[in-house]
Formats: sequence, structure tokens, C-alpha cells
Amino acid sequence: MSEGDLTIHVCTACRRPRPDLPEGYDQPGIGLAERLAAQLEARGSRIAVLPVECLAVCKRPCTIALSADGKWTYLIGDLETETHLDEIVGAAEAYAASANGIVPWKERPQSFRKGVVARVPPLPARQQG
Amino acid sequence: MSEGDLTIHVCTACRRPRPDLPEGYDQPGIGLAERLAAQLEARGSRIAVLPVECLAVCKRPCTIALSADGKWTYLIGDLETETHLDEIVGAAEAYAASANGIVPWKERPQSFRKGVVARVPPLPARQQG
Repeated sequence: MSEGDLTIHVCTACRRPRPDLPEGYDQPGIGLAERLAAQLEARGSRIAVLPVECLAVCKRPCTIALSADGKWTYLIGDLETETHLDEIVGAAEAYAASANGIVPWKERPQSFRKGVVARVPPLPARQQG
Repeated sequence: MSEGDLTIHVCTACRRPRPDLPEGYDQPGIGLAERLAAQLEARGSRIAVLPVECLAVCKRPCTIALSADGKWTYLIGDLETETHLDEIVGAAEAYAASANGIVPWKERPQSFRKGVVARVPPLPARQQG
């Protein structure tokens, strides 16, 4: 199991209220996906970042999903590019290094402890693989 | 793609407030998993029902996750065994019959429209498969 198996899906649809903008909102997931991909590439990481149109969480931008073959999928929300970029990179690397996607609680950054939206087990066939 | 590829994970950890009980709560996911498995078996379905200790949603019992190789995973909450059992069976069969796990909105039962917690795309390798 290598880093290359991990995909970070970043929701680009969520709207964050921004009363200072004419539209009244922005969509910070687009920028997060770009910054995250750039930071991982700069580290020589093979973790993939994929922008995705909608993770259907909607109310907790930015929302991301970490998934890998044979591992638990984790959905994390309430992430801000400015504040949490390093924590996301660290948490993704810890996830990639884990056997089943479950990183010990004390090793998770604060944003991942507070931001968890849901998790889903790997499919049975892949659990046995 | 057959029904046998679909796994319904049912969270058995969520606590539903029940002031009438000495503990003050029950854990309705256990009963939902049993009833759902029985109903699917009675219909001759190959859809698998797997109780799971925690989907980390916690506040929206019962919560379930529908997942299958190469399809979007859907997390649905606020499901009641008494009210929604038939809707869950129908929605699961529609999901199993779909190409990518995305069932048209108008074909989803009300409980699945209102109860969506999140969704996650299939992994890229499986999308291409």
C-alpha cells in the first residue's frame, strides 16, 4: 500500500457565505484543491487530489473525502485553506501510511477531529484482499 | 454489475433519545440491520447488509451507507425502521440497478432525498474499470 493509492476528493460546489462579495458567497473548494495539489507535488507525494462537483454535504465548506482501496473512507468538513492546508497534508500522509485508513485519534490534527462528517468501511471483498 | 455487488452498511452505534427507557436512549440501527436483511432475503435479493460499529455521523440515527465497486457511495441518515424499511429496500434496489450509484432525483424516496448526509465518488481506477 503506497501513497499513490490515496485519493483526496475536494468538493468544489460548497458555497461559503461572503457578504463582502457581490454574489454573497465564494466556493473555496476550488482554491483548496489547487493549493493542496501544489503542496503535495512540491513534497514529491503521489497522493492524488481530485476536485469533485458535489459531495452533498453542502453546509460545511470545505469538505473533502479521503479514500483508498481497502481502507475506510473519511469525510471531513469545515476546512479552510488558509488555516488547515498543512494539517490536511499531514493527515493525508498519516492516512496513506495507515493499514486500514483509521489513524489513531491522538495523531489526528484538531481540524480532522472536529470536522469529521462521516466514515465508511471498505467493501467486504477489499477488506479480505 | 449485479445486486450482489451492493453492500448496505448500517450503523449500530447511533443513540436515539428515548426518555421512556431507563438508559434514556436506544440504538435502533441493530434492529434496522436485522429487519432489512430479513426483508431482502425474503425477496431473494443478493444485496448484503452489514452492521457496522460507527459511521461517525452519530446525530442522525439510523444512518446507513450504500456502496458498491465502481459506484458512488451514499450516506443516508434519519431513517426509522418502522417508517422507512420499504423505502430503503426500494432505494437499494434502484441503486443496485444504476450504472454508477446515482439514482435520478425523482426516483428517490422522500427519506433518501431529505436524509442524504454525504456522497463520495468511486476511486479513479474503478471509474475506469
